[in-house]
Amino acid sequence: MENLLSRRARSHQASRIRELLLLTEQPHMMSLAGGLPAPEGVPIDLIRSAFDRAIGHIGATGSTALQYAPTEGVAALREQVAEEHAVRVEDVLITTGSQQALDLLARILCDPDDVIVAEDPSYLGALQAFRFAGAEVVGVPGDADGIDVDGVEAALAAAGPRAKAVYVVSNFHNPSGSVLSAQRRVRLVELAEAYGVVIIEDDPYGEIRFAGDRLAPLGAAGRPVVRLGSSSKVLAPGLRVGWMSGPAPIIGAAVRAKQAADLHTSSLNQLIVAEARADRAAFGAHLDTAREIYRLRAAALAAALRAELGDHVSFADPSGGMFLWCTVPTVSSTERLLEIALDKGVAFVPGSAFAVSPGSDVDHASAMRLSYATLDPAGLAQAASRLAAAVRTMEG
Amino acid sequence: MENLLSRRARSHQASRIRELLLLTEQPHMMSLAGGLPAPEGVPIDLIRSAFDRAIGHIGATGSTALQYAPTEGVAALREQVAEEHAVRVEDVLITTGSQQALDLLARILCDPDDVIVAEDPSYLGALQAFRFAGAEVVGVPGDADGIDVDGVEAALAAAGPRAKAVYVVSNFHNPSGSVLSAQRRVRLVELAEAYGVVIIEDDPYGEIRFAGDRLAPLGAAGRPVVRLGSSSKVLAPGLRVGWMSGPAPIIGAAVRAKQAADLHTSSLNQLIVAEARADRAAFGAHLDTAREIYRLRAAALAAALRAELGDHVSFADPSGGMFLWCTVPTVSSTERLLEIALDKGVAFVPGSAFAVSPGSDVDHASAMRLSYATLDPAGLAQAASRLAAAVRTMEG
Repeated sequence: MENLLSRRARSHQASRIRELLLLTEQPHMMSLAGGLPAPEGVPIDLIRSAFDRAIGHIGATGSTALQYAPTEGVAALREQVAEEHAVRVEDVLITTGSQQALDLLARILCDPDDVIVAEDPSYLGALQAFRFAGAEVVGVPGDADGIDVDGVEAALAAAGPRAKAVYVVSNFHNPSGSVLSAQRRVRLVELAEAYGVVIIEDDPYGEIRFAGDRLAPLGAAGRPVVRLGSSSKVLAPGLRVGWMSGPAPIIGAAVRAKQAADLHTSSLNQLIVAEARADRAAFGAHLDTAREIYRLRAAALAAALRAELGDHVSFADPSGGMFLWCTVPTVSSTERLLEIALDKGVAFVPGSAFAVSPGSDVDHASAMRLSYATLDPAGLAQAASRLAAAVRTMEG
Repeated sequence: MENLLSRRARSHQASRIRELLLLTEQPHMMSLAGGLPAPEGVPIDLIRSAFDRAIGHIGATGSTALQYAPTEGVAALREQVAEEHAVRVEDVLITTGSQQALDLLARILCDPDDVIVAEDPSYLGALQAFRFAGAEVVGVPGDADGIDVDGVEAALAAAGPRAKAVYVVSNFHNPSGSVLSAQRRVRLVELAEAYGVVIIEDDPYGEIRFAGDRLAPLGAAGRPVVRLGSSSKVLAPGLRVGWMSGPAPIIGAAVRAKQAADLHTSSLNQLIVAEARADRAAFGAHLDTAREIYRLRAAALAAALRAELGDHVSFADPSGGMFLWCTVPTVSSTERLLEIALDKGVAFVPGSAFAVSPGSDVDHASAMRLSYATLDPAGLAQAASRLAAAVRTMEG
């Protein structure tokens, strides 16, 4: 049967994150690996009441929550997104999570060997979607202010007409935690206009800001930007509801591609998200709670790492999101460190998993992504203690 | 922005069905076009109680219905499908509707210009998914017993190593309504083994049989068959939950492709389907109700067509499913007939929409697909009367 598989299927291998997450399912394992929202960050009562209202939408063919829906998405949710993104309703497409938006964009933008420029390190799911579509991903380093814009310009110039898009996570980058600065946002849009490419602005974490001021998004009506959002981080990942807005020809092509991909996103879940967000008092209170949970957890993890590992580690304090990107200069391979850490009962994702060009000089071999989303402060302290034991064993 | 689109996106145009369905949203339009289940066929109370049980699945990270889930699917539903398909749980993948199964299979099986053999006419969504992946679809005619197996053998022989799969809808074919005979099922599996290809057995309608005896599926452990199922026709399309089972290398590649496509299907909706089907008494009673609804509607439409159009039409009485495939020999273009029909307030899908090679000799220009799923018997009678008026107008 293997010989029946297409070239892309044969070259598309299982990801390290995926195999890791399987390991972390063992009992007693403390996981800093996944990006699972805190149970307290998932508003179960809000979702229950949203379900009751959602299933009560009755149309000519019964509950609209249970029937087929337009590929573009359910009107109530598209209207909410259009208002939030300050675009026309027609320029909004609801997707089966943000992951589907990345997959659709890769397929409608890229012929084999076309180029997408991305911050190195990058979100693994984006790299998988782009590569599965046959695109070449060109990595550009970043810092605390996000991707290096001069590096982006050089990459676009080098790729010429093969360049199709620049992929950024604008707020609380996964995995680096960086926030793209206001100046760089402006410059990236200028570069997209100058080089005739589109910016893919992935922003699943923007609503989980617990320090500093919100920055204006890159995406706005009339700009060459496709802006992605998600309900996974602030409502529930199990709903698989995301969205994108952008230039009409790109949204139109994405709608046609989505029709072949899964017809439409669950009508029920779209209406649950729309109903939950429409209850502004309850949703606002939930967002406040979630931000406070993640603020306390980020602080707890940072304090524990400093107490346990001091000068052995280097990291920036997160101002939002779910991840802390930690470098251990004395450790030359966090993949090897992970093996020891798993023995000690703690899991994380090695930096190399996010490398745009694994095996190159820029392989993030001394870095690791630590999620503070899932464990509570006491659990984070214990996980940091186990991690420190692993580092000492490896140095030892 | 158009110049940024990939070749596949530019060649992938909006479907006629889709534009049609937009027209049928007008008030007073009686639609025989869509395959929307009858409101009475969607068990809203069963789904409400299944939701209550589903959201109550609490794990280490809160409600498992609301959290991330494995790409393969939620265990409870995979186990149900494995039992029903008589395969190992590992050989089952839950998909975002059957449409996603078709899209994933096309992507993991087909390099550009590889061949999928399909009955002509075929389900439009399958044709779209196959073509969007770059595959060439080769049509083989069928009759009341399904696809012509000698024609399949000739097509496989002609395609040689480019042939990857044979696509069939085994029960109550969309659009033709045919049921693949037991003899042809056996022969197709033999052909797949002989020619080293896989059968894609799409079976969303099998549970809606209201006459005759159930036939054994093509798919079974150890056979070169990928078997697809869906909750859309017997529970609710708005849940977007389907599944596939098949040979391990194909399921494995589909899981990896799905990880890049949408991470996983909604955990909530998977658990709703699993809980609804696990309540065997209530689900069985619902299936009995649904079968009786569709039996009465099929009979009502057939009787009305005979009364209104007599010898002007030719069709077989459905024994299950949602569609009646009707030929009007005196009408040379049901696309033109549709324009008149829309003026009279009735919609259907012209046969040409399902043609594997539109514009060829086999373009089904005198046929139309009539769905009896959505309207009640009185509505079906009125729709048939409007359709007859359109036929008389066209015949002049």
